[in-house]
Amino acid sequence: MIKFNEAELRENYQGTLALRPGIEAAVDKFYEEGFDSIWIFGTGGTWATGVQAEYYMRGKCSIPVYVEQAGEFNVTGNKRLTDNALVLFTTVTGTTGELITAMETIRKTKAKVIGFVDEPGTPLTKLCDVCFSWPHNSQIKFWMVLDRIQYLHGDFPDYDKFYAQLDAHLAQGLCDIEKQADEFAHEWAKKKVEWMKENKDMPHYFIGAGPAWGNTYSTAMCYWEEMLWIRTKSISAPEFFHGTLEIIEKDTPVTLYLTEDEQRPLEERVARFLPRVCERYTIIDTKDYKLEGIDEEYRGRISHLITRCVNNRIEAHLEVETRHPMEIRRYYRQFPY
Amino acid sequence: MIKFNEAELRENYQGTLALRPGIEAAVDKFYEEGFDSIWIFGTGGTWATGVQAEYYMRGKCSIPVYVEQAGEFNVTGNKRLTDNALVLFTTVTGTTGELITAMETIRKTKAKVIGFVDEPGTPLTKLCDVCFSWPHNSQIKFWMVLDRIQYLHGDFPDYDKFYAQLDAHLAQGLCDIEKQADEFAHEWAKKKVEWMKENKDMPHYFIGAGPAWGNTYSTAMCYWEEMLWIRTKSISAPEFFHGTLEIIEKDTPVTLYLTEDEQRPLEERVARFLPRVCERYTIIDTKDYKLEGIDEEYRGRISHLITRCVNNRIEAHLEVETRHPMEIRRYYRQFPY
Repeated sequence: MIKFNEAELRENYQGTLALRPGIEAAVDKFYEEGFDSIWIFGTGGTWATGVQAEYYMRGKCSIPVYVEQAGEFNVTGNKRLTDNALVLFTTVTGTTGELITAMETIRKTKAKVIGFVDEPGTPLTKLCDVCFSWPHNSQIKFWMVLDRIQYLHGDFPDYDKFYAQLDAHLAQGLCDIEKQADEFAHEWAKKKVEWMKENKDMPHYFIGAGPAWGNTYSTAMCYWEEMLWIRTKSISAPEFFHGTLEIIEKDTPVTLYLTEDEQRPLEERVARFLPRVCERYTIIDTKDYKLEGIDEEYRGRISHLITRCVNNRIEAHLEVETRHPMEIRRYYRQFPY
Repeated sequence: MIKFNEAELRENYQGTLALRPGIEAAVDKFYEEGFDSIWIFGTGGTWATGVQAEYYMRGKCSIPVYVEQAGEFNVTGNKRLTDNALVLFTTVTGTTGELITAMETIRKTKAKVIGFVDEPGTPLTKLCDVCFSWPHNSQIKFWMVLDRIQYLHGDFPDYDKFYAQLDAHLAQGLCDIEKQADEFAHEWAKKKVEWMKENKDMPHYFIGAGPAWGNTYSTAMCYWEEMLWIRTKSISAPEFFHGTLEIIEKDTPVTLYLTEDEQRPLEERVARFLPRVCERYTIIDTKDYKLEGIDEEYRGRISHLITRCVNNRIEAHLEVETRHPMEIRRYYRQFPY
């Protein structure tokens, strides 16, 4: 399998989960001191992770969660922010300009900040009360914070059982999903790239709902547009029916995510609609992927990790089939703007 | 001028503004009784108006504003909603299924509901504490509610002066903007449709920020996709730089909105970037349009109304040039799904 080192991947997941005692210590302390709201800051993919996190909390916990695109915060501010806020952010490079500016503002308040900065020693590591540095898996990191808050708030009594299962099985389970998805992804990427020869301008449509929406948005924008230079449009499943449906035709390429959270019915509605008008659609259904050792009832909390594994395989093969190295950027950070 | 009846349009704006005494009476009463948060419900275009309203309030007022896509609320709920919420919605038909279901849930709480339902006597008129029925201008309606709340909350001391100017000048001012924009819009639409003959799959990119983002999203989705069946992608100005920029090339069609609210610097950054990589871009700058009688300092609060006027003219001409009546729907409400 290309671009897949199972041992390394498993170890990376396991190392992420191993951050949990440190996260619990920080969250427990801040919860004890009291906070009135949770603020997640990001840009692009990390903002999308925040959006996803807000959806995740919405139906589960009464503590307000606000998501701030850092660039927007820097010009608009937010009058709802108080000194009693708990602030979270995640960044790979630790150097994102908008986020540095936003955190400099935040540090002038009494708000508490938990930062996840993949790259140790970078500017953003210095702009938090507690900083964790371990590469990748920003979603698992955020979820550990949010699940702990749910637990402390009385909204997740199963917390210990859930994380015992993740600690024991998630890392291998996610590796196995990539292996299970690889052949499908390879065939799919070959067909897609062949078809794109005659259809290079046609955007690929991505549809997902709620806790899967952040993933859907960032797959379209951060992976396909930014790293593969393929046109896309992402739209949430319930919003799809209020406009975008009208430009789906027989030959329009669509990927729909079916997940196992409470918004699945919204995604299923799209799944019923698509075959009536389109034949070039793909459904990625997390139910098709086993996660050994993790109870059925918990899968909705982590379906977005399953879709990311499948997407990883598709992108690995698209990278080869398009002969487009995912590292290269045409404009981003290439010249000042 | 096609699709433009100045007297009718002016009267419609003036009639919208004339709802204000009734809105003030309702808002003042609910404010006196006390509410802890504002909840805006919608789907598609009306949800986008809610998103825009939340951006508008964010930097101006400390009362939390939540925006709920009604379909999502129906499956996820929201644990932050309390009996002390003030709920707003707007709907043209008064029959949107998702919104009816959501409001039926809301009516089981003690939350207060202000509804704007264009069509009198429809189901949604019965699901509010106070209902206003007057066609069009959902944004002006919401703004009147939100500006009054800002005023009562001590965040908008200029309220009376601002609305005296709107009452006296807005209706004619917006009509004049459509007249000013018409020739540009006609030329633009002709060129666009000519170019589309050879480029029918290429999406049109729409970029706007913050208080202009809801407009940008709904112009792309509710007008171009739903009513004109033209492919689009919308992206917010700050997010543009975290992915979408990479697929902009010399011949990619882009429309950027420059407004006069506090997020203009984010839009200006895109304006600086675009000419380096693209020649098929259009900037619609609200500063190019006069609004006689309305102070400079207030224009940021209503720039989105200016861009809508310009968009109205573009869409009117696209409708002719594409020979695509904007009333027709391919799938929406044509068969069950």
